[in-house]
Amino acid sequence: MASQEPALTSQKSKKSSEEPETTPQEPVPTTPLIPSAKYSNRVVLKTILERSDGGVGLAGARLVIGGWVKSSNELRNDPPSMQPEDNDGVAESPGHKEFSCMEILQTRVPLFRSIAKIFGASGNFPVRARLQQASSKPPAASTPSPPPIVKLLVNDGSCVASLHVTIEFSDDFPIRPLPIGTCVLAEGVLNQLPAQAKHSIEFKVEKFLHIGTVEDDKYLLSKKRLPLESLRDYSHFRPRTTTMASVMRIRSALAFATHSFFQDNGFLSMEVPIMTTTDGEGCSAKFRVTTLSGKEVEKGKPKITDDTEGVRLEVVKGAIKEKNNLIQQLQRSDSNKEALFIAEQDLLKTNQLLAQLEEKEKLRLETLKKASKANVPEDFFSQHTYLTVSGVLHLESYACSLGNVYSFGPRFRADRKGTAKQVAEMWAVEAEMAFSELEDAMNCAEDYFKFLCKWVLENCSADMKFVSKRIDKTRINLLEAMKSSSYERITYGEAVNILKKVADRKFETQPEWDNGLTSQHLSYLVDEIYKKPVIIYNFPKEFKPFYVRLNEDGKTVAAFDMIIPRGGTLITGSQKEERFNLLNERINGLGLARDQYEWYLDLRRHGTVKHSGFTLGFDLMVLFATGIPDVREAIPFPRSSGKVNN
Amino acid sequence: MASQEPALTSQKSKKSSEEPETTPQEPVPTTPLIPSAKYSNRVVLKTILERSDGGVGLAGARLVIGGWVKSSNELRNDPPSMQPEDNDGVAESPGHKEFSCMEILQTRVPLFRSIAKIFGASGNFPVRARLQQASSKPPAASTPSPPPIVKLLVNDGSCVASLHVTIEFSDDFPIRPLPIGTCVLAEGVLNQLPAQAKHSIEFKVEKFLHIGTVEDDKYLLSKKRLPLESLRDYSHFRPRTTTMASVMRIRSALAFATHSFFQDNGFLSMEVPIMTTTDGEGCSAKFRVTTLSGKEVEKGKPKITDDTEGVRLEVVKGAIKEKNNLIQQLQRSDSNKEALFIAEQDLLKTNQLLAQLEEKEKLRLETLKKASKANVPEDFFSQHTYLTVSGVLHLESYACSLGNVYSFGPRFRADRKGTAKQVAEMWAVEAEMAFSELEDAMNCAEDYFKFLCKWVLENCSADMKFVSKRIDKTRINLLEAMKSSSYERITYGEAVNILKKVADRKFETQPEWDNGLTSQHLSYLVDEIYKKPVIIYNFPKEFKPFYVRLNEDGKTVAAFDMIIPRGGTLITGSQKEERFNLLNERINGLGLARDQYEWYLDLRRHGTVKHSGFTLGFDLMVLFATGIPDVREAIPFPRSSGKVNN
Repeated sequence: MASQEPALTSQKSKKSSEEPETTPQEPVPTTPLIPSAKYSNRVVLKTILERSDGGVGLAGARLVIGGWVKSSNELRNDPPSMQPEDNDGVAESPGHKEFSCMEILQTRVPLFRSIAKIFGASGNFPVRARLQQASSKPPAASTPSPPPIVKLLVNDGSCVASLHVTIEFSDDFPIRPLPIGTCVLAEGVLNQLPAQAKHSIEFKVEKFLHIGTVEDDKYLLSKKRLPLESLRDYSHFRPRTTTMASVMRIRSALAFATHSFFQDNGFLSMEVPIMTTTDGEGCSAKFRVTTLSGKEVEKGKPKITDDTEGVRLEVVKGAIKEKNNLIQQLQRSDSNKEALFIAEQDLLKTNQLLAQLEEKEKLRLETLKKASKANVPEDFFSQHTYLTVSGVLHLESYACSLGNVYSFGPRFRADRKGTAKQVAEMWAVEAEMAFSELEDAMNCAEDYFKFLCKWVLENCSADMKFVSKRIDKTRINLLEAMKSSSYERITYGEAVNILKKVADRKFETQPEWDNGLTSQHLSYLVDEIYKKPVIIYNFPKEFKPFYVRLNEDGKTVAAFDMIIPRGGTLITGSQKEERFNLLNERINGLGLARDQYEWYLDLRRHGTVKHSGFTLGFDLMVLFATGIPDVREAIPFPRSSGKVNN
Repeated sequence: MASQEPALTSQKSKKSSEEPETTPQEPVPTTPLIPSAKYSNRVVLKTILERSDGGVGLAGARLVIGGWVKSSNELRNDPPSMQPEDNDGVAESPGHKEFSCMEILQTRVPLFRSIAKIFGASGNFPVRARLQQASSKPPAASTPSPPPIVKLLVNDGSCVASLHVTIEFSDDFPIRPLPIGTCVLAEGVLNQLPAQAKHSIEFKVEKFLHIGTVEDDKYLLSKKRLPLESLRDYSHFRPRTTTMASVMRIRSALAFATHSFFQDNGFLSMEVPIMTTTDGEGCSAKFRVTTLSGKEVEKGKPKITDDTEGVRLEVVKGAIKEKNNLIQQLQRSDSNKEALFIAEQDLLKTNQLLAQLEEKEKLRLETLKKASKANVPEDFFSQHTYLTVSGVLHLESYACSLGNVYSFGPRFRADRKGTAKQVAEMWAVEAEMAFSELEDAMNCAEDYFKFLCKWVLENCSADMKFVSKRIDKTRINLLEAMKSSSYERITYGEAVNILKKVADRKFETQPEWDNGLTSQHLSYLVDEIYKKPVIIYNFPKEFKPFYVRLNEDGKTVAAFDMIIPRGGTLITGSQKEERFNLLNERINGLGLARDQYEWYLDLRRHGTVKHSGFTLGFDLMVLFATGIPDVREAIPFPRSSGKVNN
């Protein structure tokens, strides 16, 4: 059957014939290969290195490992200063004086580069051929003779730790050290090392199955001491640094913890629209979405009318047909006059609707005709449409029918300047609960935050140890304290009064009811007075969005902010205004584009329910968990300012 | 302290004083209240109705329930045809002849509407006051005297089933039936009914804590028999229909199943950028993102250059300072000449970089100055930026450092016509695995799909029973079959040959190698020949994106499509081209904007690895699980065409 192209099996067998055969010095395998990971042809390093015995229990096992070289070292007479170092491509604190051994080797042994270039980018090059090429090139006169052993650290991104890998040289196997960043897939044996060794196991390569070379002089991460922020424009390589890999693993754990928390508590996951006409936050800096090109936007205008109008017309026509059938049936039976009367009334209404729709459709077609004559380009949407700033309003509509719902998705602000806490594209977790008031939302927010801290400590212990070592020594203790402490809850008025009484500190902004709370105020409350998270609630209505519920006093609203130690405001929440008249007044009073909020007012017109919820800035949570100071290092692909690389 | 506004506790106590007092006829509570849900003041109905005993074990319990009235009925002498019906606002199949009792009541008893209007939208109206208002209005002469009992079905969105609720009338408690859509929060007692009753428990209301009225004549869902598609423009009410609520619960379960599958298998969750300059699919219909208004776009142009340039300049200057310090230290010690040499070389290179950056910065400032003089508006981004069509390329960059990664997020296509399978904004699940080939990706895709089917059957049994009843009787069996069957795998060439031999069917497009496979072909293969999912792989390279790995035959690529019964193509996947030269040729050959792909080529330049992955159309999976025919009913807020309501 597969006459026209190779079937998978034949392709597979063809490929395996290309694989290097067993090299002469390879010992006869005494143990079978450990099975590979489920969807891969190698053993994931985490399953070796994060065993409670550090992998010792697997000693003697034959397996295939894969990963990227983190450091490379020739064993020489004075090895102590040349032990492999875990190169994470990130600047150490000043005064740290380690060197990448590869830098030294490359400087002294230019041959290595030329070998790498010969191999080119064809990663699937058989080792046998590679070796032949390498050995056929006579060593340069100034090059020292190849050392007997090369030690690598290899990391596959599954965990912080790297595997110690040994390659033994001989005349038959004269492979050169592989530069930092090289991808290796190798079969070999895991050996236990003597008790006095620094590490307990190492992997001895017997054959390479694949090598992905690096153009070493162009590879950004070949050098140590790159400040993390200098890698922002290289997000495609950034996760190869140990620090960014840890941050991304912790981020992933926080994402799954989020889903676990809400699903365990009976919340339904909902996606809110990314493209929307509704603006929940009164945000002035929004991204517009359009299908017009530059020139077309000039002449263009929003799409004239909805082209689903025609579809709806058909639907209504179908419904009328059905209703007519029903009436005929009822007329035949003659038993249910009441039902017949209702059906007739219903038909009447539907006919009226049809007439309206037909009128609209006529108008639409006429306008289309005119537009087509004038050759005016049409935008995709009939109204100006933006990237969503917040999903809260949409999520409410689902809370007002399904109960408890949450959403995890991207949110956008076109602020010109990226800051350490705000970039153009960030992810948020939003939760909304029906039959729920302000205090319920505060309880849920507190539980959720505690759950996140606990989850990271329990599920990311190696990564947390690493970030504590490299970024912030106190981070683990800080997260521990979050798990257990009871959080302070004070009103906005209380917060202002407390800050007014502070004598030992001069604030840039004087704490006054009308001034609002600055980050300096918040930090003083949380980091110096309470030394634990503080929830401030009942804000003056001027400081919060239109949808927050007005309190009995008429001047405050049922909103809260949760401020965390050394992290600022992480969660904002509120009980929503469920009373139609009050919400309506507020929308009118603020002069909002009322037609955009009719659907939102509908939720109060029909079956209104008390509901509350909150939003957590997910990227800020990553900052808090890791101690990373800038959100551009917490986001996989930062869109901080004008630049988009990919 | 809380002088300026009420503290939460006082607010709470104030509120509770407004709650209606115990009505006279209320029995003395014999049992304590069942605790409410964790973040709410009511018991979630699912915890009663989805107990294995149907809630009977809770008989006699006092509790607070909340939800929306799904149907309402007065008990009269001939109750059989008037039993409460589960109104889901969706058209029955033709011939179904139930009526909403409320329609009948409203027609006959106009008073009910006027009462609803008096209550207005102030949902927090004390019941006592409501009752007084209601009773102070003398019944119209034509109105029948109030019946003794009203039966409601109340649903809170947590499950398919609704709670049977009884309100007993008396002169002291003359409450009227509450129209469909009314929100109720009520305290009462759960009673077991006699064995001959149709249902086993019912809730007897003792007092209402909150009522959210409906403007009944304007409330869309007051009427039965609305076709589901007629609700597309009313996404804020749509989940109040039983059908859409079930679809959304199944959707939520599928989302959590997705996270569970990948996290259990060691995949890391990654967010890919929504705003991007890279186009992975060669999609012509993209949404542009801009901060320019219509007129500005005319004059405007992309942002001139990156304003992080200045930041990078500072970073490099800092690095030079550090490197100078290091050299001074090394010069002092005089012991490590080798290290000194390297450090000096390093400084030299960094100084060269600084010179380049300074030149760029100078140019940038000059251009800025010119632009500012010409008063040309600047867009937010320096290049034309679009909403992402696919996250595959970005996800690859994370797979090429972290191993196995997945992403769940929104993807965008500005196709003019929304179809039953494609709208502008859809969610996709993308997975990418390092050290992984085509077969690994097919295995993983198959396991993932089986996992989803199993999860829905196990975790959404009530919802699946409902959708099977209302939408597609065979759906549960279909999902069951997916769990266990082994899926067929054939090459594209085999598929064409099989279809060529088909004699009993005339296809619109003749099956030929160059013609591609149409949906008619795929449906024949899956639904008529194999009757199980079919994975077709090794497609002609012309039919697949540039990044798919070229097979040995030079004409096919390592891509696959998974076609599911009655669902078409659900998953597309591929092994990616890891060989720099071949990828480079392909990008050049297709004439793609090469500078957009430099970062992507970098992944092959440095440490390239074999990797593969796949994309599942999440909304199409919801269609498959529920049997819903149109994707616009599978998405919480469909953006099908020109219209955006919210």
